Amino acid sequence: MRPTITVFEASPDRGRGLARDMRVRWALEEVGLAYDVRRVSFEAMKAPAHLALNPFGQIPTYEDGALALFETGSIILHIAQTHAGLLPSDADARARAITWMFAAVSTVEPPIVEWSSFFLFERDQPGYAARLPMLLDRIRVRLGQLSSHIGDADWLDGGFSAADIMMVHVLRRLGSSGLLDEYPHLAAYIARAEARPAYQRAFADQLAVFVDSQS
Amino acid sequence: MRPTITVFEASPDRGRGLARDMRVRWALEEVGLAYDVRRVSFEAMKAPAHLALNPFGQIPTYEDGALALFETGSIILHIAQTHAGLLPSDADARARAITWMFAAVSTVEPPIVEWSSFFLFERDQPGYAARLPMLLDRIRVRLGQLSSHIGDADWLDGGFSAADIMMVHVLRRLGSSGLLDEYPHLAAYIARAEARPAYQRAFADQLAVFVDSQS
Repeated sequence: MRPTITVFEASPDRGRGLARDMRVRWALEEVGLAYDVRRVSFEAMKAPAHLALNPFGQIPTYEDGALALFETGSIILHIAQTHAGLLPSDADARARAITWMFAAVSTVEPPIVEWSSFFLFERDQPGYAARLPMLLDRIRVRLGQLSSHIGDADWLDGGFSAADIMMVHVLRRLGSSGLLDEYPHLAAYIARAEARPAYQRAFADQLAVFVDSQS
Repeated sequence: MRPTITVFEASPDRGRGLARDMRVRWALEEVGLAYDVRRVSFEAMKAPAHLALNPFGQIPTYEDGALALFETGSIILHIAQTHAGLLPSDADARARAITWMFAAVSTVEPPIVEWSSFFLFERDQPGYAARLPMLLDRIRVRLGQLSSHIGDADWLDGGFSAADIMMVHVLRRLGSSGLLDEYPHLAAYIARAEARPAYQRAFADQLAVFVDSQS
């Protein structure tokens, strides 16, 4: 039985791997699990059939037989708990990896999403330029703390784990901001992740969906 | 061996149960696990000893022997995985409960934190009144979706779980906004949670710390 994930019919990022299905694709590639993809339009995301899978009307969702999940952290944790390769076997190390999965979505991602929403919806508003530096500084606080933690290490906590998938994907949304240039440890961390064959397969697959949507 | 959690030396919420240690206290009370509390000043939260526990310099942290965790979602998931009473035993139901734990911090909480930071840091700025309705409407989108999901049910997915601890605590931060009055299903959900003896013990304990800090 192959799981099915939902993805944007035509991703607003134009296939740059920033949509959240990329995280789940990457995790599935890391563990070598084949999967099916269902493309969902913005209209269909708000319709009852999709809301039954995710009451907040977002992608990705994950269906495997009778089980339906949403939230990338939860989907990837489920994959990691049922397949080898994404979490350490030592119980304490596993708990710490899960801490970092939550840190990615709960502590690092929110100021990044706030900044990108501000750009997307308010960049033509009069107060935009005056307010922008404060939002960038909030992101810098988190990037500085994360950079101090990672230092010269390869990954967040020991070997590569599901936590690195979550954190790297969250950070990649900053690509257009130039902020990552200020944190060489983080830029190297992201580059290390992007060099993984599983990342590259996942990236190619999400890009192919976007290219196909334009043809 | 009792675990130790860190809490604000003097919580900015003045003991109204809005600081994030409340979530962990509540979970510990639900499973009947005694714990120790270490109070941390704002200065100490940014010092090396605390940053070694949480690189982002926040409370709460959780120490149990050699294990140190941060992020309330991860701490509560760890408690729930090692003690009965906070997660269903059925594997699929357990995975869905974890989905809702992530939804609380990753989908519902960010617009609430954005609004409360905006109030805290920008309410004296000229653009405040013009921008506020947009932020409240973003919260309303999530509250409406959550309310439609919960409806007349007691809890998010079947019986009470760790997911309800996370979600109720996230929603309680809206108390001062008046928004919850627009969603009777959610107001009833929160009241149901607040009536639990474990919630009330946790609330009393965090209030006692604040009262003590003022004496």
